[in-house]
Amino acid sequence: MKITVAQLNYHIGNFKGNTAKMLDAVQRAKEDGADIVCFSELATCGYPPRDFLEFDDFICLGEESIAALAEAAQGIAIVVGSVSHNPVPEGKDLYNSVYFLEDGKIKFIQHKSLLPTYDIFDEYRYFEPAHEWGIVEYKGKKIALTVCEDIWNIGNENPLYKICPLDNMMKYEPDFILNVSASPFDTDHAESRINIVKANCDRYKIPMIYVNHVGAQTEVLFDGGSLIASGDGTIHDELPYFEECIKTYELADIESATTENFQKKDKIALIHDGIIMGIKDYFGKLGFTKAILGLSGGIDSAVTIALAARALGAENVHALLMPSQYSSDHSIDDAVALAENLGCPYDIIPIKGIYDAFMDQLAPKFGDLPFNVTEENIQARARGVLNMAMSNKFGNILLNTSNKSEMAVGYGTLYGDMCGGLSVIGDVYKSDVFRLAEYINKDGEVIPMNTITKPPSAELRPNQKDSDSLPDYDILDEILYQYIERTQDPQDIIAMGYDAKLVKRILRLVNINEFKRYQTAPVLRVSSKAFGMGRRMPIVGKYLS
Amino acid sequence: MKITVAQLNYHIGNFKGNTAKMLDAVQRAKEDGADIVCFSELATCGYPPRDFLEFDDFICLGEESIAALAEAAQGIAIVVGSVSHNPVPEGKDLYNSVYFLEDGKIKFIQHKSLLPTYDIFDEYRYFEPAHEWGIVEYKGKKIALTVCEDIWNIGNENPLYKICPLDNMMKYEPDFILNVSASPFDTDHAESRINIVKANCDRYKIPMIYVNHVGAQTEVLFDGGSLIASGDGTIHDELPYFEECIKTYELADIESATTENFQKKDKIALIHDGIIMGIKDYFGKLGFTKAILGLSGGIDSAVTIALAARALGAENVHALLMPSQYSSDHSIDDAVALAENLGCPYDIIPIKGIYDAFMDQLAPKFGDLPFNVTEENIQARARGVLNMAMSNKFGNILLNTSNKSEMAVGYGTLYGDMCGGLSVIGDVYKSDVFRLAEYINKDGEVIPMNTITKPPSAELRPNQKDSDSLPDYDILDEILYQYIERTQDPQDIIAMGYDAKLVKRILRLVNINEFKRYQTAPVLRVSSKAFGMGRRMPIVGKYLS
Repeated sequence: MKITVAQLNYHIGNFKGNTAKMLDAVQRAKEDGADIVCFSELATCGYPPRDFLEFDDFICLGEESIAALAEAAQGIAIVVGSVSHNPVPEGKDLYNSVYFLEDGKIKFIQHKSLLPTYDIFDEYRYFEPAHEWGIVEYKGKKIALTVCEDIWNIGNENPLYKICPLDNMMKYEPDFILNVSASPFDTDHAESRINIVKANCDRYKIPMIYVNHVGAQTEVLFDGGSLIASGDGTIHDELPYFEECIKTYELADIESATTENFQKKDKIALIHDGIIMGIKDYFGKLGFTKAILGLSGGIDSAVTIALAARALGAENVHALLMPSQYSSDHSIDDAVALAENLGCPYDIIPIKGIYDAFMDQLAPKFGDLPFNVTEENIQARARGVLNMAMSNKFGNILLNTSNKSEMAVGYGTLYGDMCGGLSVIGDVYKSDVFRLAEYINKDGEVIPMNTITKPPSAELRPNQKDSDSLPDYDILDEILYQYIERTQDPQDIIAMGYDAKLVKRILRLVNINEFKRYQTAPVLRVSSKAFGMGRRMPIVGKYLS
Repeated sequence: MKITVAQLNYHIGNFKGNTAKMLDAVQRAKEDGADIVCFSELATCGYPPRDFLEFDDFICLGEESIAALAEAAQGIAIVVGSVSHNPVPEGKDLYNSVYFLEDGKIKFIQHKSLLPTYDIFDEYRYFEPAHEWGIVEYKGKKIALTVCEDIWNIGNENPLYKICPLDNMMKYEPDFILNVSASPFDTDHAESRINIVKANCDRYKIPMIYVNHVGAQTEVLFDGGSLIASGDGTIHDELPYFEECIKTYELADIESATTENFQKKDKIALIHDGIIMGIKDYFGKLGFTKAILGLSGGIDSAVTIALAARALGAENVHALLMPSQYSSDHSIDDAVALAENLGCPYDIIPIKGIYDAFMDQLAPKFGDLPFNVTEENIQARARGVLNMAMSNKFGNILLNTSNKSEMAVGYGTLYGDMCGGLSVIGDVYKSDVFRLAEYINKDGEVIPMNTITKPPSAELRPNQKDSDSLPDYDILDEILYQYIERTQDPQDIIAMGYDAKLVKRILRLVNINEFKRYQTAPVLRVSSKAFGMGRRMPIVGKYLS
């Protein structure tokens, strides 16, 4: 039996495009002589469809996609994830299902049992969990069909759940397991996926084929990395990260596999490749080709433009250099050198005249009040307006250049440098931004060394440095990581050896700046806990604040 | 038996403040000779605590509050909602529970069974549902304790759920039901609450006491309106809306009640009062007293400032009039008249010099390209920067003045008029904004008649009117309502008699402007479907777009 694994990039709500792409893959699978072609979770509508699921019309379009795919299931079986209706009035209206299509018809449907409802996931908001389990028989083989999370509760040891769907399917003695997934990227996730697939094979002693999404849906990145494993857990193949791939396997080869075939998992390289895919898909799926961003000479905008140039082509990324009276000469030189290294078009627009025009109007109100964060913010906001004006006039999207460390502690100006349609490195701590810069430079200097080595500064007042108001980024980032990714309590972080006053100050800064992050662009998610839809905090709260 | 109902305003994460407030109420109940005092759902930590629940320390603080309340439960029993631990490894770690405290101890805990996971609710993200039900006996009475949603599945007819907790409790023959709630306001909700309480009484033939939260937690408003109902569903009392209230009842009086006692439920009056509470609590709980906003002479900012003045005191609401070359004289006159009617301080800051400074810098890039939305946005953004500069310098919060109709179709400038810490009328359609203006004027002209009667205009180019680019608000709002609140499909809305092209155009505008709403301030929620946490839409989607 030959099985084609189709790791594809879908687009939420684009039923026509997604279906056409799958029909092409069916054709390709037929040419490969495949008996089955397998797509991923909710492949018809894309993942996550979110509240689009509340529209009957949206559900109907999914049914039409399934009908079109069923029609193509002639001489080949198609396994594909899509929504299905709950036929009884009790419980939520919808199931998240995997369909087995054969002979022009829907032959079998298995619903998803384990509905992730944590971090970015809201599946219990929409779906009823499965309460029945079966298998499908095809060409003499018995196949267990599962959806994503269903394989993540091995032997019922995941405390989030109380059911192990595969345990319930085993009484039918399946020959192998197909899993259709939409399992998002983070830098540790490929490793976890391999471990979970191995552990399932180890428990059930049958092969597993795991088909993941690839591509970005706004902030959520899917890395692909689909897996083909033998009954003893040997990883016969791992599909590439961050790109589409269609590949056909002989089941007998999978069953008898003895050598493993993994890709390298370097954290910084994964972040680099993931962000590039994220930018590319954000623009491509919205129908835009050109970006704009402010280039300060600092490392954040340098890394952002380098990644954007690799994603969109240097000629499509326009840099604005907007020096103020507090900008140092080297900042402008470094920014120009970078734009020229990359081959990005750039313009220099000084903001002093604009700043002065604001201050002229405000002078009667401000009187003798001292220069403070207000004037710093006016500079950042003047730049925001200029960026947006160029974006509006020339139809490109402004990229936000904030890093995760500064977003965490609120070290940024709302409606100023926090503007932008997409936050490129908002899930990358400052210390990893430096590592990304070195990685970008690994085959030759793209980002000027001076940008990497000089002390970080917002340059909004004379001789300002980040270290005037923030601790060293190494320490800051470690404390933030413990609090944000690992949800450690303040007393636990202090027990790790950090200064108690510092820990409390930082955690307080994180919590009182929730209002700023609420109004920030979607952040490309590369860690297990990014700001945005996966981290939901009260604004008006009084906890650690 | 005497029962005290304590309808209080909690603050998320403020365990100390919430506990102190409850201890005061316990004292007051004792003075009233009460046998029981009843608080509401998750009263210790406030509702909704969101991802604060992921911190062990946060859960511990709740346990400490329960311990402090238990200590005060001497000569009186206390019923209060708080988090509890799931003692077994299977299932989520936490329960959403109601505690019965007596004789210095926790006497009984009942967990919540029905976990709302829709609209603004994410309870399944955090909590395990109850699988066991009991009752508590106290002074010869048997009491069924329930948490909020647990009374909303009468006879298992709510399709969202498969369990009816009260049906399971009835075998113990309780004498009455206590329900601790955190049931958010919308203009229809008080009516629904009364109906559900009546329907429960009708089914079980015993009295019910329903204790709700009151107060605002950022965008979510709780109106109170706690209910005391006899066994035949007579509403013996309904506590006031939008204010705290502590009141003691004799159970025998509840049982024998024959007359009903409701408050008026006028939609516009409820919105008016709800928004005022929302502003007051947003500022109060963040520790701010002063607001600023841009006053254009139009109806949106007029209604916003009138509501803010009533919430915070006119002297605490600073108006900025920022005319451009396109502002009409009457706009400035109307805005001045309004500020003076209200007694709000105001300043006039023309933006022409600032606009010209931007255009001077951009001229070499823009060349001969025609005036378009870019230049309109520069005006709106110049105002945004001025508003924020005054906010930063003088430590007040900028109020956003966008209405729901324009937020829906993206008729607003991101980082311009869409700036602000709180969206005051972002859940009020334009046609209701007019009704609110009339309601505000009911005891005398506050908002100048000219502001109400003149055709709406953004005044960003000569002779601009909203009706140049949008249909009449009456039609627009009805189509938006069907799409947003009622999640009707385009074909259903067209079938209601609206022009097909218009419907498709409007729905497309709603969907392609998701990126703008993603970066907007939290919106005070007054309808059953507000923009924000209760409506979760993909940005990069291709559905109706």
